[in-house]
Amino acid sequence: MERPRVSAFLGASLDGFLAESDGGLGFLKPFEQEEHGYAAFYATVDTLLMGRKTYETVLGFEAWPFADRRVAVLTHTARTPRFGERFLSGEPTEVLDVLARQGARHVYADGGEVVTQFLAAGCLDSLVVSVVPVILGTGIRLFASSPGRHALTLESVRTLASGLVQLRYRIG
Amino acid sequence: MERPRVSAFLGASLDGFLAESDGGLGFLKPFEQEEHGYAAFYATVDTLLMGRKTYETVLGFEAWPFADRRVAVLTHTARTPRFGERFLSGEPTEVLDVLARQGARHVYADGGEVVTQFLAAGCLDSLVVSVVPVILGTGIRLFASSPGRHALTLESVRTLASGLVQLRYRIG
Repeated sequence: MERPRVSAFLGASLDGFLAESDGGLGFLKPFEQEEHGYAAFYATVDTLLMGRKTYETVLGFEAWPFADRRVAVLTHTARTPRFGERFLSGEPTEVLDVLARQGARHVYADGGEVVTQFLAAGCLDSLVVSVVPVILGTGIRLFASSPGRHALTLESVRTLASGLVQLRYRIG
Repeated sequence: MERPRVSAFLGASLDGFLAESDGGLGFLKPFEQEEHGYAAFYATVDTLLMGRKTYETVLGFEAWPFADRRVAVLTHTARTPRFGERFLSGEPTEVLDVLARQGARHVYADGGEVVTQFLAAGCLDSLVVSVVPVILGTGIRLFASSPGRHALTLESVRTLASGLVQLRYRIG
């Protein structure tokens, strides 16, 4: 069975931070109103894969935003699904094999830790980074723990009116 | 006397590293043959400002590359100049006042520590970052110690055939 493609869609400061030190995303707020292609990206994925922290954040939203997608949560703690989500654990290749059997073709890896883990395992295929015109100074790094060195192939660059620059890469 | 303008021209990995953990720049090597505007940038500056480490690296080169420019080295240790370079110490604003009196109009801040120090002090006016299509994972961060948060204004974006993306910002 063909392993699904895995993509990430992240925002970062020029100095490579994904979030403020306390996890806050305030520095991204001024850029959220701009159309930066998230909906078009989301339309291409059939499966969301997230860590426990991202999952718990999303559970706190007023509505479950992924009703139209397969959702997998990486966690070692079994829970009762509330919206059809599934709980998985294991190495990235094992997780992708499980998702492939469920019919996944294109997985959206959401959250810095999941992205880093899949990148490190050679299981991330493409990466979109929206670089906002901000130097944060400190914060949570784009790839939390070191994912090792990876060559990238630039696929496209978009410049938005706000000064956000969106870089789209293929890994390898 | 008008304070000189200060600019930086840096290369970095996508994840915001200026150099490998041991200070190595091997990851930038594949991109050095490409014309990425360094000569045009250099033509606009009249003064180079560098830290002791950069200075000592440059002293090891076969020839002194800055014969046609005013060179100032930030150090607390007085030395004998070998190529007309001057040794300065003090806060960024004091250093810039000294350079202004020597006729400086546009200073090239060279080396991560000097750039970070001047940025932190609100004394960096513009910043060119050439983002190479590489994830390093670990290394020396773009701004070594935290320079605080700074808003940027994107001035231009250039995309090179190698996949290098050059981002040009005004600080503030």
